[in-house]
Amino acid sequence: MKHLLSISDLDKEEIIALMDEADRFREALEGREIKKLPTLRGRTIFTMFYENSTRTRASFETAGKWMSADVINISASSSSVSKGESLKDTGATLAAIGADAIIVRHPASGAAQQLAGWLAPGGIGPSIINAGDGSHQHPTQALLDAVTIRQRLGELEGRKVVIVGDCLHSRVVRSNVDLLSALGAEVVLVAPPTLLPAGVDTWPVRTTMNFDAEIKDADVVMMLRVQAERMHGGFFPSHREYANYFGLSQARSAAMKKGAIVMHPGPMLRGMEINYAVADAPHTAMLQQVSNGVHLRMAVLFTLLAGSDQPGF
Amino acid sequence: MKHLLSISDLDKEEIIALMDEADRFREALEGREIKKLPTLRGRTIFTMFYENSTRTRASFETAGKWMSADVINISASSSSVSKGESLKDTGATLAAIGADAIIVRHPASGAAQQLAGWLAPGGIGPSIINAGDGSHQHPTQALLDAVTIRQRLGELEGRKVVIVGDCLHSRVVRSNVDLLSALGAEVVLVAPPTLLPAGVDTWPVRTTMNFDAEIKDADVVMMLRVQAERMHGGFFPSHREYANYFGLSQARSAAMKKGAIVMHPGPMLRGMEINYAVADAPHTAMLQQVSNGVHLRMAVLFTLLAGSDQPGF
Amino acid sequence: MKHLLSISDLDKEEIIALMDEADRFREALEGREIKKLPTLRGRTIFTMFYENSTRTRASFETAGKWMSADVINISASSSSVSKGESLKDTGATLAAIGADAIIVRHPASGAAQQLAGWLAPGGIGPSIINAGDGSHQHPTQALLDAVTIRQRLGELEGRKVVIVGDCLHSRVVRSNVDLLSALGAEVVLVAPPTLLPAGVDTWPVRTTMNFDAEIKDADVVMMLRVQAERMHGGFFPSHREYANYFGLSQARSAAMKKGAIVMHPGPMLRGMEINYAVADAPHTAMLQQVSNGVHLRMAVLFTLLAGSDQPGF
Repeated sequence: MKHLLSISDLDKEEIIALMDEADRFREALEGREIKKLPTLRGRTIFTMFYENSTRTRASFETAGKWMSADVINISASSSSVSKGESLKDTGATLAAIGADAIIVRHPASGAAQQLAGWLAPGGIGPSIINAGDGSHQHPTQALLDAVTIRQRLGELEGRKVVIVGDCLHSRVVRSNVDLLSALGAEVVLVAPPTLLPAGVDTWPVRTTMNFDAEIKDADVVMMLRVQAERMHGGFFPSHREYANYFGLSQARSAAMKKGAIVMHPGPMLRGMEINYAVADAPHTAMLQQVSNGVHLRMAVLFTLLAGSDQPGF
Repeated sequence: MKHLLSISDLDKEEIIALMDEADRFREALEGREIKKLPTLRGRTIFTMFYENSTRTRASFETAGKWMSADVINISASSSSVSKGESLKDTGATLAAIGADAIIVRHPASGAAQQLAGWLAPGGIGPSIINAGDGSHQHPTQALLDAVTIRQRLGELEGRKVVIVGDCLHSRVVRSNVDLLSALGAEVVLVAPPTLLPAGVDTWPVRTTMNFDAEIKDADVVMMLRVQAERMHGGFFPSHREYANYFGLSQARSAAMKKGAIVMHPGPMLRGMEINYAVADAPHTAMLQQVSNGVHLRMAVLFTLLAGSDQPGF
Repeated sequence: MKHLLSISDLDKEEIIALMDEADRFREALEGREIKKLPTLRGRTIFTMFYENSTRTRASFETAGKWMSADVINISASSSSVSKGESLKDTGATLAAIGADAIIVRHPASGAAQQLAGWLAPGGIGPSIINAGDGSHQHPTQALLDAVTIRQRLGELEGRKVVIVGDCLHSRVVRSNVDLLSALGAEVVLVAPPTLLPAGVDTWPVRTTMNFDAEIKDADVVMMLRVQAERMHGGFFPSHREYANYFGLSQARSAAMKKGAIVMHPGPMLRGMEINYAVADAPHTAMLQQVSNGVHLRMAVLFTLLAGSDQPGF
């Protein structure tokens, strides 16, 4: 595996291998005071974020540093990147500096894929890791979600996962639909038609507006972040309507079956997307998602940079 | 000791133990070309600064790196943090990522304390270090000030410390009053009534507007940073008035007794708070304060993260 | 060598020694998976950038980290640095924190020189490295350019180097003219009179507006970055005029003699300064310049911090 650009590039075995590797890193580090492996010593990893992200950038930086890599952060205001050309030249510069991997977040869908094509046309050049490209993909999020579901519920095959909210702008939903269907889970999207993407009828999902009908037998309720800044205007519900129809209230939470879990990619808007108390309830796995994120990103960096023939720790 | 939130949480012995540890780190590193101890290898320290700070953030980052910790910087524009809720969730995310310590600077008084309550309710969770919360506390500043005074003048007991300027907005003054009175120093605040905080009459200090009367027998003259952006309006003096009444002029500096020292937490406004030449005079200890800051922060990180039963170097 | 402030401070032997050291670092690291030398372990390097720069800051940070130094980034919006005094106090603070080197980029010409005078008056204090000061000097750029020319063409003596574009605002041109003339190359500046600096008639260069006449027998065509924000107004050419007169078109590129190379300090404005395809052509050395930049900066840091009597790897 050279790059991680989209879950749709991975087959079932590759997905499970990354998930297993993440679990191995978790087991290797859990309870250790000294979280430091020599695995990627002397490798140089750049984060190149054209959108702000505290949690994803910090998670990748932690993953790299725990494996002794050099991690260098490049942040760019989107204003300085009005053309794809700039992305290309900035990426080529980081490659020439000596990047072994470039972790890129970009507002344009397809940016990571383009970068990989530009910088590593013949498989030479740095590994590109997509940390979120527009409303397209966020593959490490889907992988860490799957790791979390498996830790809580066991195998994903046959599980019912209900994804709720702004599916139109969400890269998390696309990556998760790809991954969950590859692993045999049933996916239901709960959203108003105005917040469903074009072409959703070709996806391996059911869609509905009726959250209450779906939540009862769901194994996983996955809340999406509301892109609040894009929710104004006649086609989108008001905040109050959104909370009424698509918020995870205490009543809805209480209607969930025993053992079912709540997930959220964060940052969450308490009070609108999710009830304050529900966000902190034991069946909410959000902080476990965050913890798994570091181990999953260690697994990705290790798989891409150190090869799979070599033990990770 | 789990957290460092406020000097008022510490007793005299704890204060002196941290000061002594700082001196030990200074002695261990002084004159060494290779400033690197393995003390905190494999520990992960986040700085989470909701206000800009070159010197404090750089000082903590240096302290952590000299002890081989991984240090990861999170900066947040205050605009993205309009609610305490966000601080809680961001902190919880960093804890879940694997933070051993979170060093927080925040514009709201009490933010560090709240964070410690949220993230480590039963003593589990990361250590929280307050790097300045609103106009409340800045405990490492007070500790490094005390280390500096002790290096220059010996024990603090019975020393007269005159603190001058904007006591209303200063977190440095609160932490220093707590620490200096715990160690038996006499504290005088020189400020106009409009720049004294409510409740100052319950503090163990004298207050006055007469800088010239107090400076003659002071052992330490501690200048405060003027929060210039808040000094406009009818209640506050003009820049010129401020300099006349509360600036450390050459004449005032010359009136100081032999051996007395000048301190400033920085960044200083030369020409208004302090005369250009006085700022660089030998009895001004500002750069020594900065140097001691690194050693003191090493002592704090070491004490909180490595325990006090284990040697630091 | 204590500081690196300006190419004009270096004699021919010092220039060649730095270039040779850069080549040695390149040879030592090339093809290695593990890019990590223990050379500067325990040294503390601050980057202090008052202007944005992705590539130069990342290049220095990489150079420092590959030699195991602690690298700490300080960025300052220019708004917070309206006076030289602030630069002095910020620099003094970093020195007191424990900086072994301060790499400074500043919009004011002479800033690095001033900082060195302030912080290291008697040779004590941190090494200052000028990473670009106003329109004055950018010595590591000139050195990495020379390393690149030598790799491509052999010795610089007698080579014809044509530098094209906005010579008025460029610090790259000043450093390169100093270095190239010290090494015996012939330098021609191609620019309109309005984009030539005052006093250029005292420089060891020829000036002309006729790019086409000069390009035919040039060994090196060095394109400058257009400081587009300063190109408005009656004295400067329009973008279209600029491209016509001073852009490196495909026709001009085709007129170059066999073996001649194109250089650009980046970031480049494709379509105006340089044709899209020419920017990626094999005789364009831009990415080689970037790679050499890391090795050259390793050589500079090593020479300043570890002394020249000690092997670098």
